Amino acid sequence: MTEVLFKPSAKRAQAVPGTNVLELARGLKLNITSACGGKGKCGKCKVLIEEGREALNAYTDAELQLLSPQERERGYRLSCAISVPDLPRFTITVPSEVEAGMLRLQVEGLEVPLALAPLVRKYVTTLSQATMEDNRSDEDRLLDTLQREHGLANLALSYEGAKQLPSAMEQGQGVITSIIWEQSRIIAIEPGDTASQCFGLAVDIGTTKIACFLVDLNSGQLTAVSSSLNPQTPYGEDVVSRIAFALESQDNLSKLQEVVLEGINQMVEESCKQVGCRPEHIYEGCFVGNTCMMHLFLGLSPKHLAFSPYCPVVRKGLTLEARRLPFSLRMHHNAMLYALPAVAGFVGADNIAVQLTMEPSRSEKPRLILDIGTNTEIVLQNGDSALACSCASGPAFEGMQVKHGMKAEAGAIEKVEIDPTSLEVDFQTIGGRKPIGICGSGVVDALAQFLSTGIMGRNGRMNGELAQRTPRMRKGTQGWEFVIAWDEETAIDSDIVITQEDISELQKAKAAIHSGCVLLLKQGGVGEEDITELVVAGAFGQYLNPESARIIGMYPEIPLEQVQVVGNAAGTGARMALVSKEARQRAEEISHQVRYYELGADPDFMREYANSMFFPYANLDKFPQTKKLLEEISHG
Amino acid sequence: MTEVLFKPSAKRAQAVPGTNVLELARGLKLNITSACGGKGKCGKCKVLIEEGREALNAYTDAELQLLSPQERERGYRLSCAISVPDLPRFTITVPSEVEAGMLRLQVEGLEVPLALAPLVRKYVTTLSQATMEDNRSDEDRLLDTLQREHGLANLALSYEGAKQLPSAMEQGQGVITSIIWEQSRIIAIEPGDTASQCFGLAVDIGTTKIACFLVDLNSGQLTAVSSSLNPQTPYGEDVVSRIAFALESQDNLSKLQEVVLEGINQMVEESCKQVGCRPEHIYEGCFVGNTCMMHLFLGLSPKHLAFSPYCPVVRKGLTLEARRLPFSLRMHHNAMLYALPAVAGFVGADNIAVQLTMEPSRSEKPRLILDIGTNTEIVLQNGDSALACSCASGPAFEGMQVKHGMKAEAGAIEKVEIDPTSLEVDFQTIGGRKPIGICGSGVVDALAQFLSTGIMGRNGRMNGELAQRTPRMRKGTQGWEFVIAWDEETAIDSDIVITQEDISELQKAKAAIHSGCVLLLKQGGVGEEDITELVVAGAFGQYLNPESARIIGMYPEIPLEQVQVVGNAAGTGARMALVSKEARQRAEEISHQVRYYELGADPDFMREYANSMFFPYANLDKFPQTKKLLEEISHG
Repeated sequence: MTEVLFKPSAKRAQAVPGTNVLELARGLKLNITSACGGKGKCGKCKVLIEEGREALNAYTDAELQLLSPQERERGYRLSCAISVPDLPRFTITVPSEVEAGMLRLQVEGLEVPLALAPLVRKYVTTLSQATMEDNRSDEDRLLDTLQREHGLANLALSYEGAKQLPSAMEQGQGVITSIIWEQSRIIAIEPGDTASQCFGLAVDIGTTKIACFLVDLNSGQLTAVSSSLNPQTPYGEDVVSRIAFALESQDNLSKLQEVVLEGINQMVEESCKQVGCRPEHIYEGCFVGNTCMMHLFLGLSPKHLAFSPYCPVVRKGLTLEARRLPFSLRMHHNAMLYALPAVAGFVGADNIAVQLTMEPSRSEKPRLILDIGTNTEIVLQNGDSALACSCASGPAFEGMQVKHGMKAEAGAIEKVEIDPTSLEVDFQTIGGRKPIGICGSGVVDALAQFLSTGIMGRNGRMNGELAQRTPRMRKGTQGWEFVIAWDEETAIDSDIVITQEDISELQKAKAAIHSGCVLLLKQGGVGEEDITELVVAGAFGQYLNPESARIIGMYPEIPLEQVQVVGNAAGTGARMALVSKEARQRAEEISHQVRYYELGADPDFMREYANSMFFPYANLDKFPQTKKLLEEISHG
Repeated sequence: MTEVLFKPSAKRAQAVPGTNVLELARGLKLNITSACGGKGKCGKCKVLIEEGREALNAYTDAELQLLSPQERERGYRLSCAISVPDLPRFTITVPSEVEAGMLRLQVEGLEVPLALAPLVRKYVTTLSQATMEDNRSDEDRLLDTLQREHGLANLALSYEGAKQLPSAMEQGQGVITSIIWEQSRIIAIEPGDTASQCFGLAVDIGTTKIACFLVDLNSGQLTAVSSSLNPQTPYGEDVVSRIAFALESQDNLSKLQEVVLEGINQMVEESCKQVGCRPEHIYEGCFVGNTCMMHLFLGLSPKHLAFSPYCPVVRKGLTLEARRLPFSLRMHHNAMLYALPAVAGFVGADNIAVQLTMEPSRSEKPRLILDIGTNTEIVLQNGDSALACSCASGPAFEGMQVKHGMKAEAGAIEKVEIDPTSLEVDFQTIGGRKPIGICGSGVVDALAQFLSTGIMGRNGRMNGELAQRTPRMRKGTQGWEFVIAWDEETAIDSDIVITQEDISELQKAKAAIHSGCVLLLKQGGVGEEDITELVVAGAFGQYLNPESARIIGMYPEIPLEQVQVVGNAAGTGARMALVSKEARQRAEEISHQVRYYELGADPDFMREYANSMFFPYANLDKFPQTKKLLEEISHG
């Protein structure tokens, strides 16, 4: 037997030499990406051989084709193409982009009460043959039958439906299924009774990841969820670099549109396989995303999104037939698409979807909605009106630009507690594994504990004197750092720390969000004490300890029972729009009502930002709870 | 000099040897078809060399490529590739399909009063750049400007328009032209001010010929007309054989759709060249044709049109974007198409268009509209209601199945007068040329004269005894025949006659039309004496002498001043629908109002048809004018 170690997850197995490595990984529930199912065709299951390289089987033809000479030189192999060698120990690193499926995304988001009223419906009819006495057109007889049997008046048969009608009648021996959109247009005709197969797709196109929700339109039930990396990522990690790539040529813009549609198509295939339905039975799609992602999805020029004043081409929702896109979507050819409206360049359809999700719980009283990400959108709802802004909070809360930062994936430290006396650390990881890094919610916990235990001051400076009390406080290459997990506790063979530089990054991020809240409230004429509810949305938000966030001053101090942490509300909003015409109308109304406030133009912006750089704020009186906490600790 | 003779037109010229034959023909106003303009690329200017073949220049490369060995063997050459040889005499036959442009088609039809209100309009705006203060989307700023400057509220920007907007703004330096459909949808955006270039296309798709009308939508003026043979003809001369071809496979149906679209595209190119405009500036198309032609144009299965009860797939008008057709039309990519509605399998959009044309002159009083062709549609309008039928009148009036019959082209005898005493004939040809045949109106004239001079009896039998009075009455190979033109008067080196068999064919045709009128009036409960107006439409109708038609009993005897002969009213109806939304709505109303009456199911059909086989009718009392005429002559 060979002892096989998969890094960074630290999963181990005793394997018989000759076992296929991809299969072994799957047995360990290690989700290595493979689009071809292990057939050596996709090249996605690439792994790095750390130990045992020389004992492996020779490169297969697939590997010679799919791996570059440089990759082979560095030790990469395709996991589907190699067998466990006959050695005592065999060590593999699975690159993070290859390990899929364990992302802890709350892609399902909130469930909100909503009456099922999808725009697409199927109606089955039996059409009599024309006779000498009734030689009306097939169209007339169909429309008449639909009116008589289903009460559908004023229907129109589309050109595509007309083309399908005669053969459908023949194949179905008179029994046909009409796919009707908005109770007004027959978009397609199918032979026989296919009423039970009626699906819709809601898609949330994020800069980094895409989530697809396959919904049974007959029941409104979610039948499958799939998510994957946005395949535009190789063309630019973030929005700005992706826009730059798109602006180089029309071909580049087309390429970005093509790959995102291909990515969605793959997810559709997966979801359909899972559910046992056919992509051709998907008749409608609803799409949300930030304004740039929506532009790229639609093939609209993102040029003006790159430069102030960041003006989008379209704001309103867009309804179009899937066939009008230059690249085909894996749906029925006559499927309808709806791209949700936006507010402005930096407050996109994803934010409208978040607002839509929160709509049923909306009241007349002021409410603040934070959708936290690389850009954080803040919406202040007050009566019928709403004000929105966007702050460049940066990716620190998503694990970027933080030394041991990582996404909220398996092995991330998501909760941190520090004993105020011993300064010992208790942590919890996603999936209960040995830690490989620390994610946003863990970092926020850590900062709150740093502040309350005096590990750092209100200005974010680490208290180096504590090095005398605990070895966790120490001088690193970049100044002071605090050890959250010792190397023997981790799966990465090194300590996991938070450095002074990390704190600076996080400080800027929280300052951006807090100052955004303050300036928006000021602009809306609403006092902090008037806020009756604060909603934190976004994949990050789901795992956030709202108390920790409040302690460090990420948002104004509001009673905790008034803070609601929701998951990926954008996807839920897309699903709402998919199954309810009313929800779409409401989305358009929201888009029209919300006024965009450009924070950069606020004369108080710099001052407020500077004040918000303090934990929780320059003037502690604005955070009486945190003030009390800090006083208790300093007295205790 | 060489004496050159072009047959069958009998045009002659004295030409210098070496003169290009195509150019020579053009100098004689002989319109030989040539799509490439004489460059040896299209092969359309094929002629048959009757005399002088051996003295011609050798085959050019173009001829070797474009003429089959069989064609070369038979003596075909390309007229653009050959020069007049140095011979005393050189004789060429121009095949009828090659001689174009002299068709005497009243493709322009009637002019009817109509308010100009096209669905497509262009609006020019100057869009300010987005600023920090006004960073609304391009869409919002455009819609706002269109509302402010042009009062256009509730507009929607189409997906295609959104894609064009940013680059149009850039190229036009803020000046853009919006192409707006139905005052509701921006279907396209162009850079700069292109308002003066706004065209529409009306198309009448006949089984045999297609007519295209290019209309300036800014003025409603007709700017160019072109017509050509329906390129589906090689796949089947008539509707039935074309349906048979289409039903063999989906590919065949596609082929028929493709060639008709290609044919239209060629005409569009020609018209645009003539006017000096670009096909991309055509934004709307209106299409009429019989039900089968419309099905083939749209790619709809014509299957049920071939079998009783001849049920079409669609009856209503169809509005669609040109891009939804599987083959592209030479128009703007986002152009809108409108296929006019029909009544039934045998009363098509072309008939609706005829009715539409007659709509402004419609009154509450009963009116009969005859649209004469291979199928003759008859409509009885009475108050708000209308009843329509179709009779299989056959192609005799169009020159088929008549010994010297021909279409109403140059060289056709179109008028005939016979002296009652001498029985000598006076005739008139289209274009004043030597006759090569006799067309429908000539035949009708001849029959009326035959009847009134006693050359034939009321049962259609020729009076052989007259052979003693005139050599024109003689025994031919098929029984009695009457010479209309002697060989020395013709361009075909033979006499032009009307035979007893010809009369039988024409008798059946007129019987079908007349019995259709009678049965429709009976079904509609309208007496012949109540008819206040009788309209004869169709290319045939334009040249018809209504008195001759009445004498022979083609339709009920109605005072001549109540008979109106109009031309190709179908094309005019298509043009009306092109420039007026109201006309479209009216077309839909007509389609909905008109009740189709199936003549074949009428129990009196055979009896009425038999009675109508007499000239003018079995019971002469129904035709008092003709009765009086016949009495006068027999007494005189």
